[in-house]
Amino acid sequence: MPLTVQIAIPIFDGLTALDAIGPYEVLQRLPGAEVVFVAEEPGPRRTDEGRLALVADLALADVPSPGILVVPGGHGTRAIAADEDSELVAWIRSAHERSRWTTSVCTGSLLLGAAGILKGLRATTHWLSMDELAAYGAEPTHERVVEQGKVITAAGVSSGIDMALRLAELVAGADVAQALQLAIEYDPEPPFDSGSPLKAPAAIVELVRRAAAASPTGA
Amino acid sequence: MPLTVQIAIPIFDGLTALDAIGPYEVLQRLPGAEVVFVAEEPGPRRTDEGRLALVADLALADVPSPGILVVPGGHGTRAIAADEDSELVAWIRSAHERSRWTTSVCTGSLLLGAAGILKGLRATTHWLSMDELAAYGAEPTHERVVEQGKVITAAGVSSGIDMALRLAELVAGADVAQALQLAIEYDPEPPFDSGSPLKAPAAIVELVRRAAAASPTGA
Repeated sequence: MPLTVQIAIPIFDGLTALDAIGPYEVLQRLPGAEVVFVAEEPGPRRTDEGRLALVADLALADVPSPGILVVPGGHGTRAIAADEDSELVAWIRSAHERSRWTTSVCTGSLLLGAAGILKGLRATTHWLSMDELAAYGAEPTHERVVEQGKVITAAGVSSGIDMALRLAELVAGADVAQALQLAIEYDPEPPFDSGSPLKAPAAIVELVRRAAAASPTGA
Repeated sequence: MPLTVQIAIPIFDGLTALDAIGPYEVLQRLPGAEVVFVAEEPGPRRTDEGRLALVADLALADVPSPGILVVPGGHGTRAIAADEDSELVAWIRSAHERSRWTTSVCTGSLLLGAAGILKGLRATTHWLSMDELAAYGAEPTHERVVEQGKVITAAGVSSGIDMALRLAELVAGADVAQALQLAIEYDPEPPFDSGSPLKAPAAIVELVRRAAAASPTGA
């Protein structure tokens, strides 16, 4: 499998770490893939609660044309999406023109939306942010991974792992994708069945909704 | 819930990012929890394939007595475990004496083993590393999350998410743990059922085993 594909994960202050690291852990094992973390300028970016920094090795300008974009979410997306001069949004728009696949996790889809990529497409995001997604002309859906041509959006935070495995299958076939799943021993056993607002007890959904309203750093 | 608990995640060159970030994403949302990334000295540490750096804000010596330890794995664990003067192993041994919970993900359990913590305990690790675990006097098991008193070990890479949700339940109760699961929308939908060597097709298991032998960076 001598394919070579550059996979760019743009990061920014206020990103949600698992949005980026779930797909990273799958895709860095893809034969022939080169994964790079990029930001407006190279250097550390703090995750949503500020308790961790991930380091971007390259600037957006250094990676103008990745084969695959994986755009993570986090509360930092709101300021970026609202900034009409955002270098990141402009980079996403431009990179998308030449990409093989353009993907997002959680509220990363709001950045795809701000770049004008989701108009008229079915798409998903964190379950608490569906209304924001609709504002970009997307048709929000509660599916976990949504494929629309070369645009793939995934639901909240942990869904990036499922998305990346599907992407690995599209890029390199089912055998490779299964091997990657086994390599990261992704045989989930959540202790509860409360991972979706359609499954969690109503009181738990309300608890998370209220906590998010009080401190909107979760998505 | 005004509990206050310091949760330390030690990092080192050659760690597997998702081992640390899965639990981080759950536990940083635990009410009253303070999560800190620590290393022998503060600063960036490169993950296994070197494609990403996570930053430790504090030195091990700054955090002598965390309530909870979460020790990630990665191929970097081998050199650390083999070093009789390892500052990290000494820190784990000492912190464990006073911890409320001592936990590991993937081959992080080899570091618990090197610290003498697993003697006579059932424990787990990445499925490819079971023999190494036995060398520390542990009784290896293929369960995904293994609780032995205050010591909790989790299987390969992605299992840290399941472990952290169970830990959240132990620390703060089932309602909080369910809310955290919903906040990170952990409603897994892997595209295949190949996440465990007991479930994956034999040819896929062999593929991963051979790839790991050729380039042992996966665990």
